[in-house]
This record gives sequence, structure tokens and C-alpha cells, in this order.
Amino acid sequence: MKCEVVAVGTELLLGQIVDTNSSYIGEQLTMVGIDSHHQTKVGDNHDRMVAVLELALSRSDAVIVCGGLGPTQDDITREAIAHVMGVELVRDEEIVERIRRRFGSRGREMPLNNLRQADVPVGAWINPAMPGTAPGLVCPMNGVHAGKVIYAVPGVPWEMQQMMTEGIMPDLQERAGITSVIKSRTLRTWGKSESGLAEELDDEITRLDETGEATIAFLASGWEGLKVRITAKADTEAEVDAALDAEDERVREIVGDIVFGVDDDTMESVLLDALRERGMTLALAESLTGGLIGSRITATPGCSDVFRGAVVPYDREFKMKLLGAPDVPAVSEEMAIAMATGVCETLGADCGIAVTGVAGPDAHEGQEPGTVWAAISIQGQTEAVLLNLPFDRERIRQFTCIAALNLLRTRLLAR
Amino acid sequence: MKCEVVAVGTELLLGQIVDTNSSYIGEQLTMVGIDSHHQTKVGDNHDRMVAVLELALSRSDAVIVCGGLGPTQDDITREAIAHVMGVELVRDEEIVERIRRRFGSRGREMPLNNLRQADVPVGAWINPAMPGTAPGLVCPMNGVHAGKVIYAVPGVPWEMQQMMTEGIMPDLQERAGITSVIKSRTLRTWGKSESGLAEELDDEITRLDETGEATIAFLASGWEGLKVRITAKADTEAEVDAALDAEDERVREIVGDIVFGVDDDTMESVLLDALRERGMTLALAESLTGGLIGSRITATPGCSDVFRGAVVPYDREFKMKLLGAPDVPAVSEEMAIAMATGVCETLGADCGIAVTGVAGPDAHEGQEPGTVWAAISIQGQTEAVLLNLPFDRERIRQFTCIAALNLLRTRLLAR
Repeated sequence: MKCEVVAVGTELLLGQIVDTNSSYIGEQLTMVGIDSHHQTKVGDNHDRMVAVLELALSRSDAVIVCGGLGPTQDDITREAIAHVMGVELVRDEEIVERIRRRFGSRGREMPLNNLRQADVPVGAWINPAMPGTAPGLVCPMNGVHAGKVIYAVPGVPWEMQQMMTEGIMPDLQERAGITSVIKSRTLRTWGKSESGLAEELDDEITRLDETGEATIAFLASGWEGLKVRITAKADTEAEVDAALDAEDERVREIVGDIVFGVDDDTMESVLLDALRERGMTLALAESLTGGLIGSRITATPGCSDVFRGAVVPYDREFKMKLLGAPDVPAVSEEMAIAMATGVCETLGADCGIAVTGVAGPDAHEGQEPGTVWAAISIQGQTEAVLLNLPFDRERIRQFTCIAALNLLRTRLLAR
Repeated sequence: MKCEVVAVGTELLLGQIVDTNSSYIGEQLTMVGIDSHHQTKVGDNHDRMVAVLELALSRSDAVIVCGGLGPTQDDITREAIAHVMGVELVRDEEIVERIRRRFGSRGREMPLNNLRQADVPVGAWINPAMPGTAPGLVCPMNGVHAGKVIYAVPGVPWEMQQMMTEGIMPDLQERAGITSVIKSRTLRTWGKSESGLAEELDDEITRLDETGEATIAFLASGWEGLKVRITAKADTEAEVDAALDAEDERVREIVGDIVFGVDDDTMESVLLDALRERGMTLALAESLTGGLIGSRITATPGCSDVFRGAVVPYDREFKMKLLGAPDVPAVSEEMAIAMATGVCETLGADCGIAVTGVAGPDAHEGQEPGTVWAAISIQGQTEAVLLNLPFDRERIRQFTCIAALNLLRTRLLAR
């Protein structure tokens, strides 16, 4: 069973709106094991819409069309579908009533334009869910496309989503005779390049290609790390979960301790949990990152039981004044270690993270951009590592954050 | 001239990533008057990619393909394009060297996988911009598609965007024979809703529809404020600039002092300039934002002459210890004012910004999420305002940042 998605709207092509509906629909289809091999954006143009729908029907068993069901003149999805079906549009008086009642309930008159929303291709029926004034359409095909179907939903995300859940997914699964379950799990990693990981997992990927037990995909996500997504398919939820667990274990055995979390875990949430379990508190001394690490830590709800606070001694003078740092070069191992130790004392924390370096674009005190010292302190034991980050200013700062957080995480786990 | 966009990547169809690249490209094309009638997402599948490219070439004069240029086995855009061109891939030793140097500069060995990124279809050339390890390709077509072109760019947005600007747009405009100059200017605003602004500018937009002097578009951009983009078209650079200047002036007359900057200005860069002009320095005391304001300030190169540093007294105790705050409720006008005054003294700064509030999701000391006190201090004069931000945790923190920065900006200008 294949199902395509067609997103309708000139504003999508102009880049005024990002099409998130297709992604949502693709995710829903994937969950139940329906393939979506093509997703297309097309403008509010009758001939092009008809051509795109014809093509989609020739490639797939079902098509979900988002948008163009509004009341205005450029909402012509109804007309385009009727043309593809080779039928007329008839006004559905029951829908007219539902729309009129909806306006009435808001104490407003229904504008005449909205009558167009009650026009339905002959042979089509209405999606049971109708959260807005735009009815969703279920349009069974005949002729060359007999047995196939077009679902039309509004472009308004929450209206579309309700129609997907209540009207479209059940119908699609019945048509597909679907019994199998597909699920994914994402391993969050930091410390290896995409190509490096791909090389390490090369044999396993080849093995999976043969056995079909699961699939592995990579997703580089900047300072969120590199995501390794495992997807498995089976007849029951239990079998899928078992397959995911087994593959999860195999991947971890191969790539080692670079896996810091799963699915929605973030580096900061994982670190906060590790500190919480150990009853430890955290303080930060941020120079080149200027508060970026603290902003990530505090993005996590409930961090206040672990996070004591941060000092951003951007001016060198305050590295000494607030953290008791010695008079050494601002970007040096000694300074990083002094900052990490100092901030633990100043804020009375068990653990400290300190970063100092050159974010660029220019060199500083003879040091090149990307030269960063990160130090961590755990109950008085402090160490520093030199990071070499050949990127632009923002990514030097971002990668400094996740590298420093990961340094503390790994050292905590190693104890 | 018509240009299609093809976004490649199974993860796009599965809904794991939202395709924002096509929207960006569509916007760029629109600015110079090139039509983009179709935008397609297709998975990492050779036959389907070839079919989609063939179809795109049959409908359009140019095709921009995003993604599938990485080093891993599922990155097969190079192969698909070579197939469409009917040519072989040849390894470009110069590209191999560039990639190897890039790894070398990070003190790392180039994994063998990355060699694939140096494979180029015979007859194609390399996009002049190569910010990452993936070269962009410019592939002139021959045979049935003679005179048409495929541009391949990586799916990584910042790499794609640089290649669009430096390599693709100039080539496209030359092919399109676009002589008229089209330029845009974005007025950055903070303080009014999109519908509010649209209402104020309603008459002016109607006037522009008639005269065609320029066009106005709105772009809500979260904590970057609301962007008002003015676009003008003329025969010469000088005429376009004159048209933009004139419209810029009219819009400012209508909307008032909510315009804080232009184009690449940010609230923080504008504030830093205002402080620099006045020879003033800045210090921050961030509670609920946890370093977010500092991270924005320090994202601006050259901020160190103005920015002294920040204190993040996340634990209440340190509001007092580091800032000499009195024993008053953590979220109160008194605390905000004490923090702003205190951080100026502690860090020896002329101006201070302090924020304290409830980011949620839960209430704190009986105060609802979204209750935020922002205080600013200018040479000893301190004031605080109460913000009510009925949003989720992250947007409460983000809007607190820009609101607090804007408060200091407006007060400085008013002096």
C-alpha cells in the first residue's frame, strides 16, 4: 500500500509558509507501515493540481491532499478532484446547515463564500471529523484509477490532524489490510562523525539489509549530536519492541559509549539526571559561550534542584574577581581549571563546568578561533581538555556546549 | 523561467525532519521573479529519484536538488544525476584534497566514505561555495533536456544557503536573462502583533497594489520579532535603492518606533551599538533565562568592548550573595531592581539588565508561569516592568530576552 501526500497552496511554494502537514502525515503513515514515496507541493492552479493528482494516482493507491478547501476563490481542491473523478460538484445541504450552525454558534452570519465549502464531488463522502468550517472529503476513484482513493483535508494543521486520526487512518488501514506494526527508536550520540559511524556500522547495516530485522539511518543534528535511528517492523507491538531492543543493544556494542540517550533525551537532560541520581549540584563558568550552556540547562523543566547557577566573566577581570582565577592567559588550561574550581566554591556546587576559548572571527591573544579549553570539576577533582573546533563563531560556541556537557557526563559515569 | 525544487531524503517522507530548505529556496526564487510551480520530496531511492528528476526537467528549466550528497551509502544524489545526464561519475582529486584538508584541520583522518563526496558527473562543475565537506554540483543537461540544468546542494541548511547565494542564484538569473534589479529590505520590529501591523499598513498596501512601487510582506519570527519585508523592482540598482528608501520611510511613519533595525540587525546588535556610541558597558543578571540573554549578546562578534559579563543566580541564595539582593520574594519588582543595580556594581558596568520570573510549567511561590519582572539600570537609575507572557516555558524565556533588551534600547534612545 502506497500513499502520497499533495500539499496545495501557492504560499507554500513562495516560502511564506513551511509545509509541516506532509511531515505529520508521513509520520502517521510510517507508524502503520504504509509507504509514502512521494510528497508534492503545488500551487492553487487547476491544471497543475489535476496533473499532480493524476500522477500521484498512477504511482500510489491513495492520495492525501492538504489545503485548498477554504471558502475563497483560490480554494479549488474540490474542483480539481471532481475533474479527476470526471464528475460534477453537488452542493450538500446538510453541510450547508452544519457550516451555518457553526457561524451561528459564534453569533455570526455565514458569508455566501462559505457555501462553496459544501460542494462535494458526486460519489464522494464527508470525513466524519469536521472541527472547522471545511469538510474533509473521501473520494473513491473509478475508471482507470478504480479502487484507489483521494482524501482531501484542510491545510489548518489541527483540523487536518483530527481528520487523519478519526477519518483517514482507520479507512487506510482497512484498505491496506494492515496488521503489521512499525516503530522507530533514536539513539542520541556525540563524539563521532556521520561518516565515521557509518564506517563502524557498515557490516551491521549490510547484515540488516540481508536479514530485514531492522533498518538503521543517520541524522546529523548539529549541537544536538548525531542521531542513529533504528526502525523495525513486525506483526505485533511486542515483536517490534523486542526487535528494537535487540538492535539497540547490537548498535551500542559496536559504537561504544558515544550513545548518551534515546529519543527525546537531550545531553543536558541526561546530565541533569546523572547528577540528580548522585545527589550532586552543578555550577557553570562560561566565557566564550556567554550563557549558552546555562540557557540549555535551564531549558529543562525541574532543573533547579541540581543547577545552582552560572557566572559569565566575559571581561577577564571578573574571571579573577568572581572566580579567584590566577593572572594567567584567558585562554589556557590553567584558566579553565581555575574557573571550574572557582565556580564550584563561589556557588557551593559539587560539580562545575568551565569553558574559555576563542569564538572568532578574529584571533585573541595569539590564539586561533576554535581554540577552546573546557574544564570539569567533580568534588574537587578538576581536569581540562583542549578542543579544536574549526567552525564559525556560532558553531564553535554550540559545539563547545555539548562537548563540555558530555565531558562531565562521561566522567560521572566513569566514576 | 521555471525552477523546481526536489528535496531528497527518506527521513523527510517519514516526517522525522521538516523540509524547510524548499521554502527558503522558493522564497529566494520569488524575490527575483523566477517561478517555482512544483516542489517534491522523494526518498533515498535511485529509480524514484531518477524518475522525479526526469519529470522535473520536463516541466521546468532548472532543478535544485537538496540532500543526498553526504558520505554514507544512502547518499545517492550524485549517482541519480549522473544517470539522468547519461554520464559516468569521476573522482575529482582536487575535491578529495579539500575534504582531506578539512578533516586534517580538525586533526582527524578523512574516513574512506568521504571519498564518495568527491565523485562528480562528467561535464558537471563544482559550486564555488563549499562550506562543508559536501561539494555542490552544477550539472548542465544535454540530449532531450539540453539547455536545462540541475543544481545539487547538501541538505544542511547553512551549507545550502551559502551555495544558493554564491553559486546558484547568479547563474540562474543569468540563464533567465533577468536584467531588472530586485531587492528587498526587512524592517525588524518588536511590540506589535502581525494582525495589528497589517491593519495599520492596510491603506499603504492597497496603495502599493495600485502603484506597484513596492510590495510589503510580514514574517512573524518569534523572539527575533516581526519582520516587515519591503521588495522593489527596477531597471537600475540606484532606482531600486531609492524606491526602498522611500517605502522604508513611509512604513516607519505609519508604524512608529517599533522598528528596531534593518535586515541583519538583531535586537542585541542594535543595543550593543547604542551602548558603544554612548561609551557605556553592560552587565546582566539572569534568573529564569539562565544565560539566554548573555548567549544572544555574545553571539555578536566584537561585543567584548561593551559586555562585561553576566551572573545567573538560579538558586535564590546567590541573588543575595553575588548581587547583594535583599531578602524579598524571588519574583518581585524589588528583586528585579536589586538584581539590576547589584550586577552593575558587581561587574562595574554602566547599564544592567535583570530578569526574574516563572518560566513554568508549574507555578512558583504562588506566581503563575509567564509572570516576569524585567529591570534595567542606566548609570544608577533603575526601573522595572512586569511582563505577562501566556506562553510555554521556552517562549516565556525567549520573549523575556527580547522584551528586556528592547526595554534598555528604548530607554537609552529616550534619554
